[in-house]
Amino acid sequence: MKHLLSIDDLGRDGIVELCDLAEAFLEVTRRDIPKVPALRGKTVATVFYEDSTRTRLSFETAAKRLSADTMSFTASSSSVQKGESLRDTAQTIEALGVDAMVVRHRAAGAPHRVAGWVDAAVVNGGDGRHEHPTQALLDTFTLRRHRGPDLDGAHVAIVGDIRHSRVARSTTKALAALGAKVTLIGPPTMLPESLDGWPAATSCDLDAVLPEVDVVYLLRIQHERQDAMLFPSLREYTTRFGLTVERAARLGTDVLVMHAGPMNRGVEIAPEIAEAPRSVITEQVANGVAIRMAVLYELLGSGAPVA
Amino acid sequence: MKHLLSIDDLGRDGIVELCDLAEAFLEVTRRDIPKVPALRGKTVATVFYEDSTRTRLSFETAAKRLSADTMSFTASSSSVQKGESLRDTAQTIEALGVDAMVVRHRAAGAPHRVAGWVDAAVVNGGDGRHEHPTQALLDTFTLRRHRGPDLDGAHVAIVGDIRHSRVARSTTKALAALGAKVTLIGPPTMLPESLDGWPAATSCDLDAVLPEVDVVYLLRIQHERQDAMLFPSLREYTTRFGLTVERAARLGTDVLVMHAGPMNRGVEIAPEIAEAPRSVITEQVANGVAIRMAVLYELLGSGAPVA
Amino acid sequence: MKHLLSIDDLGRDGIVELCDLAEAFLEVTRRDIPKVPALRGKTVATVFYEDSTRTRLSFETAAKRLSADTMSFTASSSSVQKGESLRDTAQTIEALGVDAMVVRHRAAGAPHRVAGWVDAAVVNGGDGRHEHPTQALLDTFTLRRHRGPDLDGAHVAIVGDIRHSRVARSTTKALAALGAKVTLIGPPTMLPESLDGWPAATSCDLDAVLPEVDVVYLLRIQHERQDAMLFPSLREYTTRFGLTVERAARLGTDVLVMHAGPMNRGVEIAPEIAEAPRSVITEQVANGVAIRMAVLYELLGSGAPVA
Repeated sequence: MKHLLSIDDLGRDGIVELCDLAEAFLEVTRRDIPKVPALRGKTVATVFYEDSTRTRLSFETAAKRLSADTMSFTASSSSVQKGESLRDTAQTIEALGVDAMVVRHRAAGAPHRVAGWVDAAVVNGGDGRHEHPTQALLDTFTLRRHRGPDLDGAHVAIVGDIRHSRVARSTTKALAALGAKVTLIGPPTMLPESLDGWPAATSCDLDAVLPEVDVVYLLRIQHERQDAMLFPSLREYTTRFGLTVERAARLGTDVLVMHAGPMNRGVEIAPEIAEAPRSVITEQVANGVAIRMAVLYELLGSGAPVA
Repeated sequence: MKHLLSIDDLGRDGIVELCDLAEAFLEVTRRDIPKVPALRGKTVATVFYEDSTRTRLSFETAAKRLSADTMSFTASSSSVQKGESLRDTAQTIEALGVDAMVVRHRAAGAPHRVAGWVDAAVVNGGDGRHEHPTQALLDTFTLRRHRGPDLDGAHVAIVGDIRHSRVARSTTKALAALGAKVTLIGPPTMLPESLDGWPAATSCDLDAVLPEVDVVYLLRIQHERQDAMLFPSLREYTTRFGLTVERAARLGTDVLVMHAGPMNRGVEIAPEIAEAPRSVITEQVANGVAIRMAVLYELLGSGAPVA
Repeated sequence: MKHLLSIDDLGRDGIVELCDLAEAFLEVTRRDIPKVPALRGKTVATVFYEDSTRTRLSFETAAKRLSADTMSFTASSSSVQKGESLRDTAQTIEALGVDAMVVRHRAAGAPHRVAGWVDAAVVNGGDGRHEHPTQALLDTFTLRRHRGPDLDGAHVAIVGDIRHSRVARSTTKALAALGAKVTLIGPPTMLPESLDGWPAATSCDLDAVLPEVDVVYLLRIQHERQDAMLFPSLREYTTRFGLTVERAARLGTDVLVMHAGPMNRGVEIAPEIAEAPRSVITEQVANGVAIRMAVLYELLGSGAPVA
């Protein structure tokens, strides 16, 4: 593996291999000294054109746990403001001595273009509405840890603004590759216009689907989208698609609740449900560090990953 | 000690113990290689909802001198902008693998609430107008280094906008706990409405108090407060409460001048006095690193603090 | 060497010595583990009042490659916003435990003033329109690596807004000190009003000079300057002073193209030329890390620089 740009690069075997490696790294993160020397001397840069402290800190923590150095570049910095092209920025960062760069960009395909310009390994940290492969991997990893390695027949409902969500797209592909059944749920304005590239079913009726699901995966509702009239009001959204206390009470006791964060408590998820035992939302965060360690190790490592 | 939220958590013995530990760490910071391995493998996060590079860098330097890793989270980052709750932010940061978080927040009590939500150790890095315990500790430490361990009878004048100052509140409590006499000085609009929780006397007449004091501690006058009509003009403030050259000339030669920074030279303190030998302002900064090392070690360390 | 404030501090021998040292450090940066312990226990702070991620990351990478700790302070941070003076900020940063500070400031002479206030070593990271000595050193280093140590008789054309460029000023002085001939080229509004301090010739006719040059060094055209009416339009600038494909075709095959970045592709340089083999622009970035390692080592190091 030279880059990680799309879940499609991996296939079933690649996803399983990274999850297995992440299991070993998760154990490392729980040690008294949660570090291995695997990437000593390597430098990992986060190159973020969209702000996301959460994802950036997750990658940087993963790099540090592997003993790599980190470098943080954000688009608010001056060279981008001065009109420097993505190509020149990427080549400059590489020339500083970077071995891998995690690229987040509002334009779909930006990390792919960077991969064509630099010799460094490139990780897609989220590109437009396109893909977010490490989120998909950490979601899959989290699900496997709870349900066992075989996801065949597991039914996952992903609820929210599917059409505009790179998380939904990547996670659907990863879960489907491992045999899970995915149903995408939201108002018609938020469902994909076509199911090309979405190995999933769709529904506009959350309550009809809930009795059959093993996992409810909630997407953050972006307030700013409301202006786009995708739904009449936040309240209306919550009534029809929010995981309220009432709705959650109708779920089987072993049904898991996931969320990619940050949450809008009271909109797509009730506060009580966010904190309920069935919620694995903070586990997703912890697992994200382990998965990103696995990805960075796979791209840059040699020798044994874990001492 | 599980958290450091208020000076009240410590009492006299706790303050003395941290000052003694800071003395050992101050010696470390002066070494050729100013580091000890005491917190190797630990991660300390600064979680700042109010901007303060000075305090953030002090904590981060302290953590690094103890060989801990650091992580910096600021409220301008996207998840907060996206409306994430303090609770979710704190739990997310903890899930990334953080052992201690230093929380600064404009709302009084915010660090206390965080301490209820996470297993990590929480340090109050300043909450609203409430407390700033590490500032109080470094002030006490600085004073003890100059006057000896016994502050009984030392008379400290704290001058400025006492009512809105968490520094004044915490430092007053710490100094009083060690036997010092504190007089709070400012125009009536800047003095506390009640002395509940303030073990101190008050005065509106700096010149009347100055002949009796051993220490003059100046608070930064915030220009923006002037709009609140707390005093007629900066010039008026300086005339009545500024430590001018003329006023300083009337101080005994061993009277110390302190300031929590950043200074408004020419307002609450004359430039010449800021740089005079009696000023221990930059010592406060250096001592702050040692005190924060002591606090972090107390919260997270085990074994011998200093090799 | 106590500080690096101006190229004038160095003279020919100083420049040559730093370039030789950078050669050894360049080899270090290409190792599997690109680090040496030369500055272990030292702390280098970047104190930037003008935003420049590129230069900041270069210095921080250099410090880390030498095993120093880094601290980043930017003017958008609160104490500066609160009106803290440059002197107080510098003394506060030093008191935190900093051994060297790299100061970038919009005011010419600011790093010199800081050097008078602190005991730490000060590096001028760019001051107003005045100097940018490490850029000059990396340019000289890059040229020596291509042309051999002796620059006697090499003819360098520097093209752009010379008058407002600290890069042009510092690089001209460094190249001239090593025997190169420098011609400054631009419209009259962009040439220096006097050649005092500029050991160079001037010309307004790029095409007349090009046949004689060994190096074309392009400066970034700042869009905002267009408002100042320094030239009629970007298109007009490109026509007369841009290194277009047509113009580049008339250069000898061994003529080098340099640029301090960030580039405005299509304005001062054609995209094809930026990526042509004769372009050493990304080499300049990589060499910048090695030169900054040499400068920091020279200021703070002891013992052998490279193990």
